[in-house]
Amino acid sequence: MADRQPPKNHRHILLMNGPDHKGLIYLVTRVLFENNQNIIKNDEYVSPSGQFFMRTEFEGEADLTKLTETLNAELPEGIGLRINPTKKKDIVLLVTKEHHCLAELLIRYAFDELDANIQAVVSNYNILQPLVSKFGIPFHFVTHEHKSREEHEEAILRTLEVYQPEYLVLAKYMRVLTPTFVQQYNNRIVNIHHSFLPAFMGANPYRQAYNRGVKIIGATAHFVNNDLDEGPIIAQDVKEVDHRLTAADMATLGRDTEKIVLSKALKLVFNDRVFIHDNRTVIL
Amino acid sequence: MADRQPPKNHRHILLMNGPDHKGLIYLVTRVLFENNQNIIKNDEYVSPSGQFFMRTEFEGEADLTKLTETLNAELPEGIGLRINPTKKKDIVLLVTKEHHCLAELLIRYAFDELDANIQAVVSNYNILQPLVSKFGIPFHFVTHEHKSREEHEEAILRTLEVYQPEYLVLAKYMRVLTPTFVQQYNNRIVNIHHSFLPAFMGANPYRQAYNRGVKIIGATAHFVNNDLDEGPIIAQDVKEVDHRLTAADMATLGRDTEKIVLSKALKLVFNDRVFIHDNRTVIL
Amino acid sequence: MADRQPPKNHRHILLMNGPDHKGLIYLVTRVLFENNQNIIKNDEYVSPSGQFFMRTEFEGEADLTKLTETLNAELPEGIGLRINPTKKKDIVLLVTKEHHCLAELLIRYAFDELDANIQAVVSNYNILQPLVSKFGIPFHFVTHEHKSREEHEEAILRTLEVYQPEYLVLAKYMRVLTPTFVQQYNNRIVNIHHSFLPAFMGANPYRQAYNRGVKIIGATAHFVNNDLDEGPIIAQDVKEVDHRLTAADMATLGRDTEKIVLSKALKLVFNDRVFIHDNRTVIL
Amino acid sequence: MADRQPPKNHRHILLMNGPDHKGLIYLVTRVLFENNQNIIKNDEYVSPSGQFFMRTEFEGEADLTKLTETLNAELPEGIGLRINPTKKKDIVLLVTKEHHCLAELLIRYAFDELDANIQAVVSNYNILQPLVSKFGIPFHFVTHEHKSREEHEEAILRTLEVYQPEYLVLAKYMRVLTPTFVQQYNNRIVNIHHSFLPAFMGANPYRQAYNRGVKIIGATAHFVNNDLDEGPIIAQDVKEVDHRLTAADMATLGRDTEKIVLSKALKLVFNDRVFIHDNRTVIL
Repeated sequence: MADRQPPKNHRHILLMNGPDHKGLIYLVTRVLFENNQNIIKNDEYVSPSGQFFMRTEFEGEADLTKLTETLNAELPEGIGLRINPTKKKDIVLLVTKEHHCLAELLIRYAFDELDANIQAVVSNYNILQPLVSKFGIPFHFVTHEHKSREEHEEAILRTLEVYQPEYLVLAKYMRVLTPTFVQQYNNRIVNIHHSFLPAFMGANPYRQAYNRGVKIIGATAHFVNNDLDEGPIIAQDVKEVDHRLTAADMATLGRDTEKIVLSKALKLVFNDRVFIHDNRTVIL
Repeated sequence: MADRQPPKNHRHILLMNGPDHKGLIYLVTRVLFENNQNIIKNDEYVSPSGQFFMRTEFEGEADLTKLTETLNAELPEGIGLRINPTKKKDIVLLVTKEHHCLAELLIRYAFDELDANIQAVVSNYNILQPLVSKFGIPFHFVTHEHKSREEHEEAILRTLEVYQPEYLVLAKYMRVLTPTFVQQYNNRIVNIHHSFLPAFMGANPYRQAYNRGVKIIGATAHFVNNDLDEGPIIAQDVKEVDHRLTAADMATLGRDTEKIVLSKALKLVFNDRVFIHDNRTVIL
Repeated sequence: MADRQPPKNHRHILLMNGPDHKGLIYLVTRVLFENNQNIIKNDEYVSPSGQFFMRTEFEGEADLTKLTETLNAELPEGIGLRINPTKKKDIVLLVTKEHHCLAELLIRYAFDELDANIQAVVSNYNILQPLVSKFGIPFHFVTHEHKSREEHEEAILRTLEVYQPEYLVLAKYMRVLTPTFVQQYNNRIVNIHHSFLPAFMGANPYRQAYNRGVKIIGATAHFVNNDLDEGPIIAQDVKEVDHRLTAADMATLGRDTEKIVLSKALKLVFNDRVFIHDNRTVIL
Repeated sequence: MADRQPPKNHRHILLMNGPDHKGLIYLVTRVLFENNQNIIKNDEYVSPSGQFFMRTEFEGEADLTKLTETLNAELPEGIGLRINPTKKKDIVLLVTKEHHCLAELLIRYAFDELDANIQAVVSNYNILQPLVSKFGIPFHFVTHEHKSREEHEEAILRTLEVYQPEYLVLAKYMRVLTPTFVQQYNNRIVNIHHSFLPAFMGANPYRQAYNRGVKIIGATAHFVNNDLDEGPIIAQDVKEVDHRLTAADMATLGRDTEKIVLSKALKLVFNDRVFIHDNRTVIL
């Protein structure tokens, strides 16, 4: 470790994940030291079941491919290792009719606060086109009408092909994705669900929340896997409510939580801080 | 309304609940005015489905029976009316092995902060007897061993017969109550559940929360009715957690939330601020 | 009270405020009843010092001037009474360089969620002009350069003259206003301060918060009066922080809180729910 | 790193703090590795000003004195190093009249949840003696009447001499301590202040909060140094309030926050997780 304000272009992130072994931290810090890299920030976690996670921010001039090889040669088998340069992720947003999460991300993007590059917005309605066009981002209206679910998803996948995004963000995209679609973006789709999961999975969570008479509502940002609303949770937040709020009032209030939670989760994901293991996230 | 520091013994609480009609507030405030009662605090709520709720604190010398009759004579049919003197409720606590909610209530009781009179503590274990005995409150050990569920509940009901409590508080009582038992204390049993209901109903909610990988855990105080963990919710609160917490850590952290939420809910209930309607609470 | 979904154009809000007297609720509900108005929602509060506040939403065809006169004729002296039609307030936003609060309000306005009509945005920089122009709202660049504070404020006041706004919203307007300016909009200027007031008044609150080592940061929406950062507080919220956050990180994190708190406060103000008394707000 | 459930008696905590140097983590992990110690948990932090903090939990049979010497021989000058065995701290509580924080700590202690050994309770009133005696802990009534501040503190110090506590906990001890007293327990006195510091320093913070009309109240646990209410903050928490709460209501509500925040802070301190630097805490 050394000076605190290095040139950003030489900063790298090492991500490691696998069964725990004695001396793993020592091994990595030694190799980085020997290769003249300065550790800026180092975080590890070992789960009760013995899974090891490590995220190390370091800086220095380095041939990352060679450094990865050197480390892999010394690491025990079964340890996954990845060294990422720090750079913005390419993403595409999927939306339906609601504007609040989309607008939040567009504004952050416009003021360079998103840690990602929004390549395009895809929607099964054209309602949000005027908003997106204000920000000069391509908008693709891919209707689901007169299409089977599979046909619709294929049309979306074709649209995405041009962009090859690293992540898809479902910013209130209100259609269920098939396993076929999800597999194409395994652990690379982030969704915002408008409830405090696992409470109120499925449709109309605010209506469900109203009917149940809860005193707190929430929102959940999570990775999407094959089981709807059951992927690894990245971030959650809540707001207090009382009997005076109708389901519609809850939906209005909940929007603020949804957009902030989604933004928070994306910041974590785009900064390579989120590991997925055993359908849970480890955030370093 | 008038002077702010009246003698407590002349303060009363009017509770009204029924289908909404034009002029209900006017009617009640008129009758109280004509009978020389001063309104200290008045709260109403009309649900979207047209149910009217009103809670009025007032003071003055009054024959409450006569006042109730006068009001009932003028009120439309179907409106429930009750006038309670402000007084501490008699309660019995049911516990199992965990001490934190029990200790919280005992301490509040010992320093006159509970708005209730703890008549006794009943438990299916004798583990907490030493704690209870420090506070000079009767402790009844009613084991469930070698008894059917029905026999055990009958033994508890016999124990309660002496006390005739207005409310039972399940302060981490870890056995499911049968509908027969619950009916005896309809809407008069308050339970603390160690999750953010309706997430993680049933057993081992912290284990369930750990497995699901949630980022927030909670606790829920609710009335008990025939459906386990599905009665009207009175109060909820949450705490943030992360991947580093084991299920046991969550349980430890959750205890603070549980005891504070239970205390908060009981304060509302014992001050006649909680209406039950349509399996939800209205809190005025 | 009666049917729940009235035509919006006949809904009115009665606001009353003055020394408490016996029978005030009764008096108002009687007059409304006699004038064939239906009370939809009624909230009162009496402060410990004996100040009475009442907000009544009611509906019906009514000559509001005549109704106000009828009520005033019966009310004791010293009670302030106002009946507002429910309508959007005209507002002008003042900003400096930061976009987040401005963007939040523009987006809400664009999607008809603000309960107000943004007439114009005024700024002492032209940095935010491109953002404002996306939404088709007049932007006035009124530089403070080469002007005394008084000259600058006069220039702003001249700009405002065209609009005659009911409220000014300081959406991160970073200049102190003189008493002369403030008096022109007495109790009609809402500011968002980027700290949990009264902690960290004045400049650079996040730097102050970092230096003090607090574990929670906050934001405060308040009315502006002659004493900087000391006007009546409308809404506050907080976020947890730890030692790892620099002052700049806190500023970034704080922005989310600032914009949500400001929006929440404005919703209350624009819905006539905020009374000011004794430098505090009463929110009904 | 190795098996997850080691015998507790061989677990140690290494604490390091000083100017940052390249390779510090590598150095420590190497020495521990070479001495056959298993790292269980490792946390570091480097402040923007270049101060390095490290806390390492490790286990194994070890001569801690010799291990400390070995490390010190290799470490650059100016780095503070300490290796603590994991054991309960001896503490004495100071209280005045309020019971809630004291009771919270007594209950946790009675059920082995405090990570500390309460040796005694000292008070300038005898009001809380009955509560303390329930738990079989020595209570020392040291009145301040007819004594100068210095005489009173000397009397307390004499009482403490028998116990030689590692930490003093001011569990609502309502007298200001002199610098002379504080110096005897430098960075070893933890206080709970009933406000969200630095708001409302000094006396009657709830009254101050009421007068200012804040919408959130809080509590702050902090180390005590020579400047009253200005020592390093360990933990804070808040609760929402509104205009309906009097200063007394806020005090009642605030008690729950105070006791939970104090308990949380003590857990961190007693587990050697709190560094003090530059009047701030770093919590690893």
